[in-house]
Amino acid sequence: MATLICPEHPSPVADAEALRKAFQGWGTNEKAIVSILGHRNAVQTKLIRKTYEDMYAEDLVKRLESELSGDFEKAIYRLVLDPEDRNAVLLNVAIKQKPIPDYRVIIEYSTIYNPDELLAVKRAYQTRYKHSLEEDIAEHTTGDLRKLLVALASPYKYFGDDINVKLAKVEADILHDKVKDKALNDEEIMRIISTRSNAQIVATLNNYKDNNGVAITKAFKDDLENSYLAALLSAIRSINNPQKYYEKVLRNALSKPGTDEDALTRVIVTRAEKDLKNIKDLYYKRNSATLDHVVGKETSSHYKALLLALLGKED
Amino acid sequence: MATLICPEHPSPVADAEALRKAFQGWGTNEKAIVSILGHRNAVQTKLIRKTYEDMYAEDLVKRLESELSGDFEKAIYRLVLDPEDRNAVLLNVAIKQKPIPDYRVIIEYSTIYNPDELLAVKRAYQTRYKHSLEEDIAEHTTGDLRKLLVALASPYKYFGDDINVKLAKVEADILHDKVKDKALNDEEIMRIISTRSNAQIVATLNNYKDNNGVAITKAFKDDLENSYLAALLSAIRSINNPQKYYEKVLRNALSKPGTDEDALTRVIVTRAEKDLKNIKDLYYKRNSATLDHVVGKETSSHYKALLLALLGKED
Repeated sequence: MATLICPEHPSPVADAEALRKAFQGWGTNEKAIVSILGHRNAVQTKLIRKTYEDMYAEDLVKRLESELSGDFEKAIYRLVLDPEDRNAVLLNVAIKQKPIPDYRVIIEYSTIYNPDELLAVKRAYQTRYKHSLEEDIAEHTTGDLRKLLVALASPYKYFGDDINVKLAKVEADILHDKVKDKALNDEEIMRIISTRSNAQIVATLNNYKDNNGVAITKAFKDDLENSYLAALLSAIRSINNPQKYYEKVLRNALSKPGTDEDALTRVIVTRAEKDLKNIKDLYYKRNSATLDHVVGKETSSHYKALLLALLGKED
Repeated sequence: MATLICPEHPSPVADAEALRKAFQGWGTNEKAIVSILGHRNAVQTKLIRKTYEDMYAEDLVKRLESELSGDFEKAIYRLVLDPEDRNAVLLNVAIKQKPIPDYRVIIEYSTIYNPDELLAVKRAYQTRYKHSLEEDIAEHTTGDLRKLLVALASPYKYFGDDINVKLAKVEADILHDKVKDKALNDEEIMRIISTRSNAQIVATLNNYKDNNGVAITKAFKDDLENSYLAALLSAIRSINNPQKYYEKVLRNALSKPGTDEDALTRVIVTRAEKDLKNIKDLYYKRNSATLDHVVGKETSSHYKALLLALLGKED
């Protein structure tokens, strides 16, 4: 379930006029910007962008970038782009991160988005960067991490419901053998996690748990300084339960001494129209505090106002 | 250029009636089948299939399978399916081949078909087999050959014209270093060949040749018993020049003591509507004999008649 609250038929002309007014005079009226863009879905936002350009012969995205700054600017920028285009930007930023890419972002798109959604992002990525997503991931990574990330991001996976129960058993045994041998970078593990359908992988993970009494994730306990292992664990978690995975990303982002605003913005902006309500519920169960409350405490000013609007918290 | 000769507006009703008649009475009239299905393009054939089913409440593909046999049946079966569906079948047959998959087929689709054509084949494959193409390739291969084939078949590559000249130089040097070290299974070679756009790879291969005086293909001379190396060489050749690659497939298929009918059928059926004319021209240049002549010599009966029809050789 979504958290975004938006009117059914807002007027794109009135919205464009209000935004234009917010840009004029002394300083920018950020509050007005939040009151509009924090309450529009992707289709409505696209229409505002188009209408704004028609009315004022000016690119709304560029104007917003020049008016705003800091985390608020970043969040508004991500929010105002078409979803595929925004996702392409998020991936490109993640890939270019130093010293190594933010593999969590690559994993999220590779495992949680369905094959046709991922394909739309790949097309947007190519239009923007004149490269494929896959070649950029491959170029900016090395070793086992590269093998895993390229393998996860590349295939057009099967997304149907058909599951092969016998295969789940066979491959759960393969996983168990590799875990026993402490061979977590074995190519059979990568093959199973990167090429099987999510439904098939979940069946395999369940079989593993039933037969061995513990989840495979327990095998990763100690070694998360190793970025390959941390990435593999993220992939298993996000395939197994996307909302629980996002809850954990938010928990980590908010519990750091300095908040991880990039992760916070990413999850809230990309999920507000999808399943942020479910993620909020999980967050509350796990942390005994509402996500709204913690976000309100850890952020400030217009950035805070925007995140709370997207979280569905009315003033 | 195509070789297929077909009327502009054939009547699907008349075609369906003629096929029905060819199935009736004592024996099958294969000549009538060739005179129709050997001279229709994919759109026309689809319409015949639909019309036949509407008129006779019978699946034309199944009926053809029950009426025919041997190489002629196989060729007609491939010809009468929708192209994406036919390609999915060809890939599945290739993957299941023992002791190892026919990697040439996997490479052809991965490197010669553009990303959206390949995607259409992947969708048809999933509809038919309830698996992804990628997971089936990964399941039926091992070692370096698996790494290469999965890497080639998986990504949604960039297909635009943009080339990075500097990058071509850098990556030509990487290739040269690996060749010098005899490390042809190095993951950097696989990365470049499997993730870069075809245009970029061609630029890299040209740079390699210009700087080193020989083409990279010369580095493969001795070791083609190794299926990984043979596959890598095939991939480089098919990316570099698809028609020349197909000419070589036909040459090998026809020069064996026993003709390789599967390869012969595949190239002729899949290219007749595309570039078989160009492939024929290359064949003549290379072999000083026309492809029609050699096909006529090495095959027989209705199978021969069908191939010659597809090759554009009128009786």
